[in-house]
Amino acid sequence: MTITRNWLAHAEGSVLVEFGGTRVLCAATVESGVPRWRKGSGLGWVTAEYAMLPRSTNTRNDRESVRGKIGGRTHEISRLIGRSLRACVDYKALGENSVVLDCDVLQADGGTRTAAITGAYVALADAIAWMRQRRMCPGDPLVNSVAAVSVGVVGTEAMLDLDYSEDVKAETDMNVVMTGRGDYVEVQGTAEGTPFDRTALNGLLDLAAVGCAELTRLQTEALA
Amino acid sequence: MTITRNWLAHAEGSVLVEFGGTRVLCAATVESGVPRWRKGSGLGWVTAEYAMLPRSTNTRNDRESVRGKIGGRTHEISRLIGRSLRACVDYKALGENSVVLDCDVLQADGGTRTAAITGAYVALADAIAWMRQRRMCPGDPLVNSVAAVSVGVVGTEAMLDLDYSEDVKAETDMNVVMTGRGDYVEVQGTAEGTPFDRTALNGLLDLAAVGCAELTRLQTEALA
Amino acid sequence: MTITRNWLAHAEGSVLVEFGGTRVLCAATVESGVPRWRKGSGLGWVTAEYAMLPRSTNTRNDRESVRGKIGGRTHEISRLIGRSLRACVDYKALGENSVVLDCDVLQADGGTRTAAITGAYVALADAIAWMRQRRMCPGDPLVNSVAAVSVGVVGTEAMLDLDYSEDVKAETDMNVVMTGRGDYVEVQGTAEGTPFDRTALNGLLDLAAVGCAELTRLQTEALA
Amino acid sequence: MTITRNWLAHAEGSVLVEFGGTRVLCAATVESGVPRWRKGSGLGWVTAEYAMLPRSTNTRNDRESVRGKIGGRTHEISRLIGRSLRACVDYKALGENSVVLDCDVLQADGGTRTAAITGAYVALADAIAWMRQRRMCPGDPLVNSVAAVSVGVVGTEAMLDLDYSEDVKAETDMNVVMTGRGDYVEVQGTAEGTPFDRTALNGLLDLAAVGCAELTRLQTEALA
Amino acid sequence: MTITRNWLAHAEGSVLVEFGGTRVLCAATVESGVPRWRKGSGLGWVTAEYAMLPRSTNTRNDRESVRGKIGGRTHEISRLIGRSLRACVDYKALGENSVVLDCDVLQADGGTRTAAITGAYVALADAIAWMRQRRMCPGDPLVNSVAAVSVGVVGTEAMLDLDYSEDVKAETDMNVVMTGRGDYVEVQGTAEGTPFDRTALNGLLDLAAVGCAELTRLQTEALA
Amino acid sequence: MTITRNWLAHAEGSVLVEFGGTRVLCAATVESGVPRWRKGSGLGWVTAEYAMLPRSTNTRNDRESVRGKIGGRTHEISRLIGRSLRACVDYKALGENSVVLDCDVLQADGGTRTAAITGAYVALADAIAWMRQRRMCPGDPLVNSVAAVSVGVVGTEAMLDLDYSEDVKAETDMNVVMTGRGDYVEVQGTAEGTPFDRTALNGLLDLAAVGCAELTRLQTEALA
Repeated sequence: MTITRNWLAHAEGSVLVEFGGTRVLCAATVESGVPRWRKGSGLGWVTAEYAMLPRSTNTRNDRESVRGKIGGRTHEISRLIGRSLRACVDYKALGENSVVLDCDVLQADGGTRTAAITGAYVALADAIAWMRQRRMCPGDPLVNSVAAVSVGVVGTEAMLDLDYSEDVKAETDMNVVMTGRGDYVEVQGTAEGTPFDRTALNGLLDLAAVGCAELTRLQTEALA
Repeated sequence: MTITRNWLAHAEGSVLVEFGGTRVLCAATVESGVPRWRKGSGLGWVTAEYAMLPRSTNTRNDRESVRGKIGGRTHEISRLIGRSLRACVDYKALGENSVVLDCDVLQADGGTRTAAITGAYVALADAIAWMRQRRMCPGDPLVNSVAAVSVGVVGTEAMLDLDYSEDVKAETDMNVVMTGRGDYVEVQGTAEGTPFDRTALNGLLDLAAVGCAELTRLQTEALA
Repeated sequence: MTITRNWLAHAEGSVLVEFGGTRVLCAATVESGVPRWRKGSGLGWVTAEYAMLPRSTNTRNDRESVRGKIGGRTHEISRLIGRSLRACVDYKALGENSVVLDCDVLQADGGTRTAAITGAYVALADAIAWMRQRRMCPGDPLVNSVAAVSVGVVGTEAMLDLDYSEDVKAETDMNVVMTGRGDYVEVQGTAEGTPFDRTALNGLLDLAAVGCAELTRLQTEALA
Repeated sequence: MTITRNWLAHAEGSVLVEFGGTRVLCAATVESGVPRWRKGSGLGWVTAEYAMLPRSTNTRNDRESVRGKIGGRTHEISRLIGRSLRACVDYKALGENSVVLDCDVLQADGGTRTAAITGAYVALADAIAWMRQRRMCPGDPLVNSVAAVSVGVVGTEAMLDLDYSEDVKAETDMNVVMTGRGDYVEVQGTAEGTPFDRTALNGLLDLAAVGCAELTRLQTEALA
Repeated sequence: MTITRNWLAHAEGSVLVEFGGTRVLCAATVESGVPRWRKGSGLGWVTAEYAMLPRSTNTRNDRESVRGKIGGRTHEISRLIGRSLRACVDYKALGENSVVLDCDVLQADGGTRTAAITGAYVALADAIAWMRQRRMCPGDPLVNSVAAVSVGVVGTEAMLDLDYSEDVKAETDMNVVMTGRGDYVEVQGTAEGTPFDRTALNGLLDLAAVGCAELTRLQTEALA
Repeated sequence: MTITRNWLAHAEGSVLVEFGGTRVLCAATVESGVPRWRKGSGLGWVTAEYAMLPRSTNTRNDRESVRGKIGGRTHEISRLIGRSLRACVDYKALGENSVVLDCDVLQADGGTRTAAITGAYVALADAIAWMRQRRMCPGDPLVNSVAAVSVGVVGTEAMLDLDYSEDVKAETDMNVVMTGRGDYVEVQGTAEGTPFDRTALNGLLDLAAVGCAELTRLQTEALA
């Protein structure tokens, strides 16, 4: 995995994450103010939007803007990224400011949602540093780091970071989002084929912990 | 939990699930034929749609039909229900037929998605029995049962089947879908507040297994 | 016809109307405030939304939320219910408050719009009683009751309350909304086949008056 | 009322109806073939669409194309016009052909829906003549004529053909669609204010019959 | 070309432009206030919307309101008309008022966008006169006149004002918007077939200048 | 300007164009078959879609997919790119195949539409080479090259390739698309402020010719 910071000139934080054939551009936008339902609370907000370019995949997908609506998968992943990044943030220390994380998949080869989370964390950290330089925040809002991996069972073997062809064959697919301290933010495991037992689940969780720790190390290096 | 079969006159399978203050109407519709991308494969398909009536909750929500688009939460839950029910089915034995499971929340008091999965399984079983009577299927498509519970950590205590007021206070919220044999179909755990550790995760999984086993017993009784 | 009050726990007024095979859930929601165009007038507002669950009918209908737009029939019936219920209300006595009536058809076997109006009146009465207990209204806003029937000509015979199979065969279909005092709020007659003459129209109006009087009696009983 | 035939060069039938300050352009389009659900039946179809230009009224209305959806009133009137015109047609004699009637209000001063029906009949008659010249129809599809008036009670007086300022003040508003033989196709009466009694209803129906007979005479003249 | 002023009773300015078989109805609506992004600037705004009636053309087009979205061509032409008319106006002298120009094509036979611009100028002039009578504007906002022609190369010959059949055959199609003083507001030339050289471009520009001058004369006459 | 070919692994042709601070990713997708209205003609088709990432600009723009519709500017530019690229292609030699050009602006600093056209040509050339290797085309469809520049008048000076800050100040803005042979495919000049005269127009066209020739040279180099 390669993490290139400041890939964009305009965004307050921006990262190009490359991971096998997968490339995700993560841009963090700082906005003063919060959504209407949160006004006057003194608390900040973090949200995310995920999308794929039409030709990021092997065959072209229609644009969601042209179809006029967002698909279920896009909705689901955007919400996952938003929840994951919110686990890093102390809303009170952020003050009534918002950070929007745009994760656009330029090229897809498996694991786009976990790459997006891992990259978006770095973009968020940069955006928060930008805010702190300008003294926009009452405190230090960055209280955790997060990284994410996908793990799966292909045949009978637990594997980390499946590429697209392995993903298609996986019996079980699990996305795990962990903090830098090794706690869970999100665990999502799905039996695509045969349901899995507790032993398999434990094996996948062990593997995920190793993967997330390695990604945390890479994030720390990139931010150094 | 109360499971009332045949609540609707027209549907091939229908169940009213009542669970605390939660009431979900699950209707299974049999359609001969499959979606276009699956035609000619000899395989069947199962899908689900979830929705809430506008006044199922404490304050009224706008209708998604009036707003002109489906929200992210609705999309996410519809997809979860569909995946869960597909784990019960042998597509080949189903033949090129589809079953659509409509899960409409008439009243909500926590745990609507897990109640929907648990009820939809019974409606699906009835719909498949209906098909088999008419000899529509080449084999017996029902190869598993599924039931689902939500578990959470309130304060420091793991709890089964949170009602709405407990759900709001939960630090961690986990939905677990298991087969009647005790294997996992889906595990979705989210830290709403503080990230959770492996011990907490194990405690929640233990509790979920007990809850799903009890629901499987109730499903078997209802179908007897 | 059976009228079950308080079918929902959260709504300020709620009724399950059952009428032959037809079941409509009517929920009244009280909201303080009025739509923007009415602000500052000192007058209240009443509106309604009608919808059918996808499997309320013999074959499944696509959800309007999924299609992304509301169909003409839904629009037309929602407007009819709203107009009918507004005839019961003194806007000045209501003050700047709104009542929204959600009429969701759980099962359909003919006459869903007239069942919805008849049930919604009872839900509205309960919601207004709820408001008066809380002294939200400057006066008593409930100045009329309304009930509605569908009448039709099948073959050459005028019939009250057609079920679905009769409705399909009807030459003429008429919906009549009347107050408890026997005046008309709405008369909608349509020749589905052969146009009808004044004599037939008079026969249908006579029959409707009898039907509405009977429904008024049932409403009074239910509210006693 | 002025009826100008052949106002458009391209349409198979077209009429500009002028009626007080109201001007509606009615265009009939002949299409060979019918909607999918009617294919293979040997029967034809007639449908209508109604719309208002943004500045047809006293203040400008946003375009429904810009808002991205059709409002309830537009839906309701389009359906009324379609039903009314279908009463003129023998589907079998039409064969598997469709006629679409576009009724666009260029200027509005009350009674736009009834002017549209009255004008659309003439456009339909011209379109059917056009088809018969080309021998597209197995028989003569035009079996009835229709005309429509709006009548209302202003104060205590029943009045025919209200203009906009009278319409606003009307206690009761009724649209009546009748055949040239004096039978009813559609009767829609609404109490905008006080509910009305049977005597008032009869008075409005009497007045409507006189109005429709006069319009039938004008249609016959225009088509002569 | 015929320019009929005051074709509509309600609009502050309105023109029916007839030009060969093309008929466009241009309505100017005056609104006090400006869009949100311009509030408090002291400057006015002018915008335009273009649309075609479904049967303005040889075959019927679906309504954009029914399809639920505006097509690219409509968007493009609406923007062109708006830009062109804004070239006539001194925003400061207009004050914080808006003029909306609705250009609806009743019948199309080539050159609808240039006819719309030419007619909309006259409607705008009338609307501004209406405002000045009411002393709504701090100064005289009308600082230019605009007129527009389409020119094209059919075969090898440059031609002015192509009708529909010529337009279809044109190798190059150019729309030119000029002020009454002979300066350019907009030049849009497109090679539909073979790319064109500088000589052809110059020939088209010469022809356009002659055409625009003639239209300016007609506008002046109409406004006299 | 930098042109990086094969920036994407999956697309049949792909180019990253960098031009000052502007970066546009152009992907060409080959699809066998043509849109419905062209089937059976033996002719191919080329189309384009343009979009901007939300944070490609200085402040974040809402996604068009989230808003549920495409804006006028996006529509206009997509159509311009499509028309320009179609000028390069012999439809007959292409056979019944389609090429879709997706131009996604990753970062914007003026001139995004002209950069998109210039890059899309190279992606198209690669996609056609890919097709010819697979013998998908009956002939050589690439009959022209195209390149595009934006020119403008800032103050009184004609300038080539304005960056964003110059663009904002420009009195006149012109986009010119030319073939490698020096002929015009599209000329679009707009007076943003004061209308411009023939002399200014000629100056801009001269400058554009120089710029397009230089870009043609760069394209040739890149494809060598």
